[in-house]
Amino acid sequence: MPGPPPAIAACRVAVRRWLTEERFPEGALVLVGCSGGADSLALLAATAFVAPRAGLRVGTVIVDHGLQPGSSRVADSVAVTAYSLLTEQGPVEVVGAQVEQTGAGPEADARRARYAAFGRTADRLGAMALLLGHTLDDQAEQVLLGLARGSGARSLAGMPRSRVLSDHSACSVGTCDVFGEDFARVLSGRMACPVGGGSESEGGGRVVLGRPLLGVSRAQTQDACAELGLVPWQDPHNEDPRFARVRVRRALADLEKDLGPGLGRNLARTAALLRDDADALDEACEAAYRELGDPPWTVGRLASLPRALRTRLWRRLALAAGSPGTDLTSEHLLAVDGLVTAWRGQGPLSLPGGVRAWRQGDRVRLERRRS
Amino acid sequence: MPGPPPAIAACRVAVRRWLTEERFPEGALVLVGCSGGADSLALLAATAFVAPRAGLRVGTVIVDHGLQPGSSRVADSVAVTAYSLLTEQGPVEVVGAQVEQTGAGPEADARRARYAAFGRTADRLGAMALLLGHTLDDQAEQVLLGLARGSGARSLAGMPRSRVLSDHSACSVGTCDVFGEDFARVLSGRMACPVGGGSESEGGGRVVLGRPLLGVSRAQTQDACAELGLVPWQDPHNEDPRFARVRVRRALADLEKDLGPGLGRNLARTAALLRDDADALDEACEAAYRELGDPPWTVGRLASLPRALRTRLWRRLALAAGSPGTDLTSEHLLAVDGLVTAWRGQGPLSLPGGVRAWRQGDRVRLERRRS
Repeated sequence: MPGPPPAIAACRVAVRRWLTEERFPEGALVLVGCSGGADSLALLAATAFVAPRAGLRVGTVIVDHGLQPGSSRVADSVAVTAYSLLTEQGPVEVVGAQVEQTGAGPEADARRARYAAFGRTADRLGAMALLLGHTLDDQAEQVLLGLARGSGARSLAGMPRSRVLSDHSACSVGTCDVFGEDFARVLSGRMACPVGGGSESEGGGRVVLGRPLLGVSRAQTQDACAELGLVPWQDPHNEDPRFARVRVRRALADLEKDLGPGLGRNLARTAALLRDDADALDEACEAAYRELGDPPWTVGRLASLPRALRTRLWRRLALAAGSPGTDLTSEHLLAVDGLVTAWRGQGPLSLPGGVRAWRQGDRVRLERRRS
Repeated sequence: MPGPPPAIAACRVAVRRWLTEERFPEGALVLVGCSGGADSLALLAATAFVAPRAGLRVGTVIVDHGLQPGSSRVADSVAVTAYSLLTEQGPVEVVGAQVEQTGAGPEADARRARYAAFGRTADRLGAMALLLGHTLDDQAEQVLLGLARGSGARSLAGMPRSRVLSDHSACSVGTCDVFGEDFARVLSGRMACPVGGGSESEGGGRVVLGRPLLGVSRAQTQDACAELGLVPWQDPHNEDPRFARVRVRRALADLEKDLGPGLGRNLARTAALLRDDADALDEACEAAYRELGDPPWTVGRLASLPRALRTRLWRRLALAAGSPGTDLTSEHLLAVDGLVTAWRGQGPLSLPGGVRAWRQGDRVRLERRRS
């Protein structure tokens, strides 16, 4: 008996591997976030095939952002396809999302509203996992976006394959693993965390956000849809160069022309390596923080730490003092570090959000200026 | 009194900062490697101005690779310019380089020969520093090249601002900070290290390789030359798309069009951050190695380490067992790591260079197969 075509098989293998790693209990509900695009349709089809064979239930959440004319018709049509794929295995939910303008830009605002709707629905239905259809190409684009910003390992590490929605411990350096830079604003109190915040307290269980297709290419999800006779929805926003995501997609295509094929896969591999690095360094920063005790710390004890840990410690202190992570740059942190490594009597430094850093005797202090 | 034009000032400030950080003794000789291109001419001019004011002597080495017709004429003409800039402060040396075909490609072979000539000359003249004219743009290109290869933090960290030529401790994970990937072959015994190897033993002192202009753009070095009335040599190889360096330069220009200006500076900033990360992780890997003692190590002790350290330990063991670093990928190392984290009785793994990894009881072993 021949197996399924390769693209379908690739999606199923990826989902099976993800579910095996997570070890959910028998009968647990796995939700798939579905936009109707090729990526999430292929993910839904693969999960509908694999999950029941692993003793799990599958449902889907379709978010209607209400941002484009006819968006509710698109959502309903995706729901019809979802019904046909799920054949009554689990719920098919179409939910609205309230997109608020936070000043972070239209893409970030829509993402925020979408994830909030995902989180609420997962809570309400008692789902243990919420799967998203991000592919290897999305991951590569994410890395390029991080590069264009000039940020460090955590930002270049792209999207995580798995994370607990309500657990923001990996976001402790100011970047949210779900929302990217936005979490800095969560930490600084400028924005409530749209997901997870309530998940554990409001009686909801632990919800794992999963991206099983990060090793599968966009072309494979398109092929899988074609093989399955599924017609993906083409979001007109995917062609609109006003969106950074669309521009970065073009940039990646240009780069592949210059540097040769396989770049997407290499960027995704880089992301995975840097994610491991960032995790290890965050862990080491945490350990150093515990060992140093309450700040202010003495220069002597700090000087023995590697600079990568010191700058992470400064970042943590600056965020805690009220510096918004979105405005805090590596230049700021290196300047603070100079109070340890290049001390020549320099005066207090100004950090974003009215935070000051200065050296007093053999200690470095960070505090918000009283207004 | 007005100061010098901004581009000249930027180069001088950069060189002064580098020299101040390194704290050479009075009268020490600083050599500038000069190709005659805008970058190294601007560096030579800035060093000739700054170093004497810091109590240091300045000389220059001009390498004639003998690869292009008329190359000796170019070298002589660069020497004439160098004489005029140095006004008898220190030696102007034109030295030949023997480019051997090692199979690493024409760019790598020429670089290897050039650095070897630099190293020999610095030794012979008793220089304490050898400065190279790499700019912010070179650094950004280096990061893009690393990305295209899909390698980790060390490779994305670009070129170091300072390193001791004979000290390869930062290369311990298989990548040479001077030669990039080549050092893997040094470690595996396939190639003698062209620099430094002899520096300390043959009576030469400690030579620091410096890149003071990593924060200065190529456009600034060109402006500085124009302001000084210096006419840089245009290497025809800089336009030849057969060279990876030329292709990556074009890729960067394309990317800036898509993602906006400032990308080069952001890539260079990323490199600096990742270099700090890579240094911290190498240090932690070193500490873990000492603490674990002689391999083979038990799975229980390894499992408590973060994956970023375990994969670095595996890389170290694999290189020591004879696996060539150029062939060893992160996939290999993650497969070895699976013997700890995803043990289900899998058989021995084959690594490049005839090295095997397998689990025996609660220990993981890496050894070269006896032939």
